[in-house]
Amino acid sequence: MSQTPLLKQLIDAFTCLPGVGRKSAQRMAYHLLERNRQGGQWLSKQLAEAMEKVGHCQQCRNFTEQALCELCANPKRNQQLMCIVESPADVSAIEHSGSFSGIYFVLMGHLSPLDGIGPEDLGFDLLLKTIKQQSVSEVIIATGSTIEGEATAHYINDILRPININITRIAQGVPMGGELEYIDANTLARSIAERRAVDY
Amino acid sequence: MSQTPLLKQLIDAFTCLPGVGRKSAQRMAYHLLERNRQGGQWLSKQLAEAMEKVGHCQQCRNFTEQALCELCANPKRNQQLMCIVESPADVSAIEHSGSFSGIYFVLMGHLSPLDGIGPEDLGFDLLLKTIKQQSVSEVIIATGSTIEGEATAHYINDILRPININITRIAQGVPMGGELEYIDANTLARSIAERRAVDY
Repeated sequence: MSQTPLLKQLIDAFTCLPGVGRKSAQRMAYHLLERNRQGGQWLSKQLAEAMEKVGHCQQCRNFTEQALCELCANPKRNQQLMCIVESPADVSAIEHSGSFSGIYFVLMGHLSPLDGIGPEDLGFDLLLKTIKQQSVSEVIIATGSTIEGEATAHYINDILRPININITRIAQGVPMGGELEYIDANTLARSIAERRAVDY
Repeated sequence: MSQTPLLKQLIDAFTCLPGVGRKSAQRMAYHLLERNRQGGQWLSKQLAEAMEKVGHCQQCRNFTEQALCELCANPKRNQQLMCIVESPADVSAIEHSGSFSGIYFVLMGHLSPLDGIGPEDLGFDLLLKTIKQQSVSEVIIATGSTIEGEATAHYINDILRPININITRIAQGVPMGGELEYIDANTLARSIAERRAVDY
């Protein structure tokens, strides 16, 4: 009863954020009201604008408020090399690694029959269209190493095999800095099965 | 570069929330854009409204969009018993415990010279005025058991002593369910120094 309707609604609204329960939501609401009303107003404005204006790139499905995202529109990127990822966050992570200079295709999810996500939700029509249009010569499948990521990778391989392009999968194995002692059995098994010739 | 201006600004804006760094902010932005645009719009609306309309109760300084908060305006509450707390979250916590039926006074902070928070910021004028107006007979000082909370409690005791009312402090000691083995030395020392006669 110590919370007024407006305050309760604000706390409620904060719980729509991932990883935010009632306690954190309350802390956020109080924090902004006590110490940062300007920040709260700014956040409100940015939210409204982004929710309304941010759409999907017509070529790669990544988030953008333009028709084409900056990466697809950039003539310096190698348009013949395509990396398929599950989410925009994956694009950020790969861009951050500075190891890729081609274009992306963002599935916006992975195959997950239990959640009702089938092939028609992942934009495979657009994928095939873009591959043809840009005469893509190699596709790197960079979905996650989870069960759903693997299933999605298999599915993509199946639909791309009829076209004559190189299909590769990102390497899976022991992460950099990983001590074998602490690596899980599946990863170790994979890293041994996929061992490669020493080249140094 | 994989994030558009609107997206970058939204992620920036999310970092004004307590405990939210760039990674969580990015996750929140992507989550709302991918899966819950309605929730994002609702949050934006609630934020704008709360930041603009939620003010402070004229009597206890707690958050409210009215002149008087629900607790101060409630004739069923014991207006002669006052509990002084640091923040609105403390009011929620005490109300949740169901152990208090008086009115509150919310300092909206604690004395902290290093952060530039002095007595003039904690509304002591209003505190004295409310005590007189409501003929408060007992004041329970429920500031935290931190250094700043203790200093604030001492300060409140100093300014209230000249008026003829009961001044009490919430009990400090071993928390319920606490095993002595795991309680810190200061708390143990306090709980022994303030031991009380067994009354059962």
